[in-house]
Amino acid sequence: MKKVGNQSFLLSNPVKIVSTASIVGPKEKEGPLCEFFDQALEDEFWGEKSWEKAESKFIKETVNMAIAKSKIAQTDIELCFAGDLLNQCISSSFGLREINIPFFGIFGACSTFVEGMILASMAIDGDFATNVVCASSSHFCSAEKQFRFPLELGNQRPPSSQWTVTGSGSAVLSKNGTGPKITILTPGKIVDMGIKDANNMGAAMAGAAADTLLTHFKDTGRKPSDYDAIFSGDLGYIGKDILIDLAASKGYNIRANYNDCGVLIFDKEKQDTHSGGSGCGCIASVFSGYIYQMFQEKKYKKVLLMATGALMNSTSSQQGESIPGIAHAISIEA
Amino acid sequence: MKKVGNQSFLLSNPVKIVSTASIVGPKEKEGPLCEFFDQALEDEFWGEKSWEKAESKFIKETVNMAIAKSKIAQTDIELCFAGDLLNQCISSSFGLREINIPFFGIFGACSTFVEGMILASMAIDGDFATNVVCASSSHFCSAEKQFRFPLELGNQRPPSSQWTVTGSGSAVLSKNGTGPKITILTPGKIVDMGIKDANNMGAAMAGAAADTLLTHFKDTGRKPSDYDAIFSGDLGYIGKDILIDLAASKGYNIRANYNDCGVLIFDKEKQDTHSGGSGCGCIASVFSGYIYQMFQEKKYKKVLLMATGALMNSTSSQQGESIPGIAHAISIEA
Repeated sequence: MKKVGNQSFLLSNPVKIVSTASIVGPKEKEGPLCEFFDQALEDEFWGEKSWEKAESKFIKETVNMAIAKSKIAQTDIELCFAGDLLNQCISSSFGLREINIPFFGIFGACSTFVEGMILASMAIDGDFATNVVCASSSHFCSAEKQFRFPLELGNQRPPSSQWTVTGSGSAVLSKNGTGPKITILTPGKIVDMGIKDANNMGAAMAGAAADTLLTHFKDTGRKPSDYDAIFSGDLGYIGKDILIDLAASKGYNIRANYNDCGVLIFDKEKQDTHSGGSGCGCIASVFSGYIYQMFQEKKYKKVLLMATGALMNSTSSQQGESIPGIAHAISIEA
Repeated sequence: MKKVGNQSFLLSNPVKIVSTASIVGPKEKEGPLCEFFDQALEDEFWGEKSWEKAESKFIKETVNMAIAKSKIAQTDIELCFAGDLLNQCISSSFGLREINIPFFGIFGACSTFVEGMILASMAIDGDFATNVVCASSSHFCSAEKQFRFPLELGNQRPPSSQWTVTGSGSAVLSKNGTGPKITILTPGKIVDMGIKDANNMGAAMAGAAADTLLTHFKDTGRKPSDYDAIFSGDLGYIGKDILIDLAASKGYNIRANYNDCGVLIFDKEKQDTHSGGSGCGCIASVFSGYIYQMFQEKKYKKVLLMATGALMNSTSSQQGESIPGIAHAISIEA
């Protein structure tokens, strides 16, 4: 490993993403990426008695599927990194309580999935593990109930709000095997732009996204056109536009090859999701489904995957706090 | 680094704990460890308008103090690992939003502090950083409000319940410098013993503690008497007794040199804290205050520090779920 610039790490032995799995809910099934997910359910409860238990089942089954696809014995997976949006990350801890793998709970809000891949890459590059599994999940119903209003209230959502994805993504990372490789890690700093509107997460996170993106370019000497595609997740429509503008103001034109997982997962016109998707499960399922498949089909050779998180809760908003954001990025190459 | 046994890691270049800092609240000030904390406050609000803002100030000031004591420039601290008990870990993300260091949010409930030290040690051993800061916090008032009942209700607490510590601990870890060394890491698995009583966390976590402790002994070939002291945090009185029994049933007698940070921090007779202290800030402040000082005074040469977490939330208890536990251990040597 070689440190490049202030906060990026070039892996001398790139980490292979040997398998991924994604399971999503009914709204995601109706969206434009449906064909790329391993499983898309009709029932948000998935036969469980609560949304929380359903979300735990999402992450459990997604991790089991990713491990099965990897053809690596579960007993040879040496570490697990997982987290989610539920208070005290109970989707992960309940969903993965039987996994029997040393477990690191992580929380970076919607940045959790890439945070996990960065820490897993560090563990593999540092020789602490050969095989590691990462996962994150979110669920529209458990998130609305926890962060906003009871669903039964039928509350109106402002146009800047995003729709929490019901879904989970998981990836098995390994020192060996084949698959797209993680080559560069750029973990991010907390950035607070002073945005206080909890219904405009995209704006709140865009500053952190710009900070990590521009740091990545500066650290590595790369430019936007070095990538086939740059994905953030999940800035939504509003945050995406802000990030494009912030990057442009620093001389980086990302308009041509940049998109956001929250923009991709739903059909804006038909699905009434306002500013797009969000939640730990959004970039996790879009990467594990769509983006990974694009690598398999050789349509992408070099992608920058940057997950963004809004590090707030409902109490902090009620107390008038602004919303700190964070963004973690990894370069993935065929 | 050399992997020993199934899930322990022997660092070939031990990581130095170059400085620690601890700040606690008024009840901890009245407790038996008062003299060991860097700062003990009279006011639970610390001049802030809410308990959450106060908790953020605890972790912010503790991290600032640990960095100042380390004599390492803040700009030379390359990574930060932090987490806490508040929903979506807002104590850490708000308290550390101005720290300007690449940030990894972690959540392992009361195991968070040692989880952070394990990940920091991996990052340092793997050459991803020279200097890393770790921290965690908890606050009795914000925790009671969030997990149990409004404080104003004056609700009665059952004898098995633990008292969340108001406090924070922080440690600066480095490849260089002097200080006690982290030599072995034993990250733990999630273990669910089927305990459903959210007022008996010690019992719920004891199974995970036993799993990690016995794995550590088996992996390393060490025995309890190889350590000057073994500390868990925070099993409290009930969990401590269960762990002693579970270890004995497997042939390990830890009675002579084992104690729990939740037992140490309060005076059982005088302070009415029932089964002892708990919370992310308990082992963090007891290690950063008392245990680190014992190393400085050469009273300890070899300590096993094992943090335990109950990976539940109030919704999971309301839904009748049992409480999964986890425990992470590190060996620290002079």
